[in-house]
Amino acid sequence: MSEIYPPFEPPRRILMGPGPSNVSSRVYRALARPTIGHLDPAFLEMMNQVSDQLRLLFGTANRLTFAVSGTGSAGMETAFVNALEAGDTAIVGVNGVFGQRMCSVAERCGARVVTVEAPWGEPLDVGELIDTWRAHEDARLLAVVHAETSTGVRQPLEELGAALRESETLFVVDAVTSLGGIPVRVDDWGIDICYSGTQKCLSVPPGLAPITFSERALERSRSRGGSVQSWYLDVGMIASYWGAERSYHHTAPINMLYALHEGLRIVLEEGLETRHERHRSLGERLQSGLTERGLELLVAEPYRLPQLTSVRLPDGVDEGAMRRELLDRYGIEVGGGLGPLAGEIWRVGLMGETCRWENVLSFHAALDELLEDNGT
Amino acid sequence: MSEIYPPFEPPRRILMGPGPSNVSSRVYRALARPTIGHLDPAFLEMMNQVSDQLRLLFGTANRLTFAVSGTGSAGMETAFVNALEAGDTAIVGVNGVFGQRMCSVAERCGARVVTVEAPWGEPLDVGELIDTWRAHEDARLLAVVHAETSTGVRQPLEELGAALRESETLFVVDAVTSLGGIPVRVDDWGIDICYSGTQKCLSVPPGLAPITFSERALERSRSRGGSVQSWYLDVGMIASYWGAERSYHHTAPINMLYALHEGLRIVLEEGLETRHERHRSLGERLQSGLTERGLELLVAEPYRLPQLTSVRLPDGVDEGAMRRELLDRYGIEVGGGLGPLAGEIWRVGLMGETCRWENVLSFHAALDELLEDNGT
Repeated sequence: MSEIYPPFEPPRRILMGPGPSNVSSRVYRALARPTIGHLDPAFLEMMNQVSDQLRLLFGTANRLTFAVSGTGSAGMETAFVNALEAGDTAIVGVNGVFGQRMCSVAERCGARVVTVEAPWGEPLDVGELIDTWRAHEDARLLAVVHAETSTGVRQPLEELGAALRESETLFVVDAVTSLGGIPVRVDDWGIDICYSGTQKCLSVPPGLAPITFSERALERSRSRGGSVQSWYLDVGMIASYWGAERSYHHTAPINMLYALHEGLRIVLEEGLETRHERHRSLGERLQSGLTERGLELLVAEPYRLPQLTSVRLPDGVDEGAMRRELLDRYGIEVGGGLGPLAGEIWRVGLMGETCRWENVLSFHAALDELLEDNGT
Repeated sequence: MSEIYPPFEPPRRILMGPGPSNVSSRVYRALARPTIGHLDPAFLEMMNQVSDQLRLLFGTANRLTFAVSGTGSAGMETAFVNALEAGDTAIVGVNGVFGQRMCSVAERCGARVVTVEAPWGEPLDVGELIDTWRAHEDARLLAVVHAETSTGVRQPLEELGAALRESETLFVVDAVTSLGGIPVRVDDWGIDICYSGTQKCLSVPPGLAPITFSERALERSRSRGGSVQSWYLDVGMIASYWGAERSYHHTAPINMLYALHEGLRIVLEEGLETRHERHRSLGERLQSGLTERGLELLVAEPYRLPQLTSVRLPDGVDEGAMRRELLDRYGIEVGGGLGPLAGEIWRVGLMGETCRWENVLSFHAALDELLEDNGT
């Protein structure tokens, strides 16, 4: 490069992909408030408020409830590196990319991974998960994805949590795409470690991973034989910064935490029930519009997420080209398929701020034009 | 909690601690620009520009030059987890908190750590480092901190880099507090992995860790026996997202990257030499003002960082109380001492946007009043 680049001006987009979602102007304003120190008394008080507000969203009384200084995958890694030691058994449900990713993360912790699989687009069989656990009752954890971002499947959790509740096996749940869009009840469902991301149904830019640890999950991390393999994600030390001791660990992403604080206020102002109902009703409207157009949805009704819809494209459509056209002509971003679904589906998000009726209408209208232009 | 918290309004602060530093209004504006997708063609082009601009700052032609999606300590962890495998030897220089942290991170990689130590406030002896390396020529890496944030010591690097250049040992440098404040010349000095943070001399809020890997360092990570123990920080996979393949790995912290892009533009507009000279001359002005007041500086002149000054407090002063008074009455944040220096010193930063003559004058004036009120 020979000269300085011009300022970056992002193009106008409606973010209807699998995340990030659109962000409220209130959150942008919070993000741009003046940076203060990570040990400033005013900042520490704000961190307490973030924890309190996250507890309401997660439905938990867990003391250790905070935001990991990284994106959703850092939340996943935080769950596994703290819960697992080399040689442990981890049972992981796999019906999409994020279940696969959990296996990879668990293997890198030196765990023996036992998988329970289902076809992409279907939920895991809860009975099979429980049977697998009974065959491996010494498993250190059992992990599933609540809302599989690669397919749009909702995984039922209640029965699984009830089965594991009195056991030695920690129940780990990926709520990256569910928190703030559909109910997540950590304490009621007996979840030990639950993590999310900011850029999905919370409508805060990516960069933080809200997470909560039950007392026994925290104790598991603290009482382990060796050190947690990640210094950055070691919750024993992080708990001393987010907790009353306020020991410096690493510099928190200060402005991102301002944004999360404001994003959580917006969620609580709307109310969780109202917010879930908004996602439910507009998701249904999006989906019925697609089936009315003769398009097939990947996921069967009872397991279909309202906030993320996988739709099969008609035969003969060049998925990538049409997705690019949707972006260039209409400014609408949707996601393509991953893995075995690449080229087959679109993933259409209606998360948080994006979940508005005008976006549903715009998407349907743009799709009609594109399908007509493509001769289908 | 029974009601929703009010919006968070940060108090007015002059950030003269060891980081974060003050942030330009241009960077705040960039931070608050509308979020777009992490696979949006416009965003990918901006990532290329961030890499290009970082190469200029690091003084490198390294292809793999990017920003880790975490704070400075995540940069440190990225360096070590990719370079080290269990059983490797790592030589680490320790003369402060961040050298100690490197040991902890290396141990968690299963490495055998050989330390070379110096008293806090003094640089490491380069001859001793080289001798130690000769005694362990099979060492996988030798790591030192360029600007030790816990003491304000500058570590000379050139001779060390020259000694290691033709060897099998990777030269790893922590430039968290140096990049953008004093010269960092990755290629000239033969550094293989160099990482920094955004919230120091780059004056961007915390949340990203700029990093660069030489080809041989990247090759080392790719050709290792087992997987990198961190999925999130595995540069083999991250390189496929930042590189031409653009394979999705994890969702990048989009708005933080907007901010870094703008922060780097500001650095390049000022010019690196001018910027280094500004830090040099104002650091000297701050420091001479302190010695004129009869205060003792921790670090001897040739190794004293201009951007971070450790000053001993007069006997009988309650350091914590006076630091709190400086914050409450004057809105000036400075850092206290860490480890053996707790209660003994203040760490006064003049980094990036904070490095202005009016801040030097304000700090001197506030200090005069506080010392008078404390009867010294």
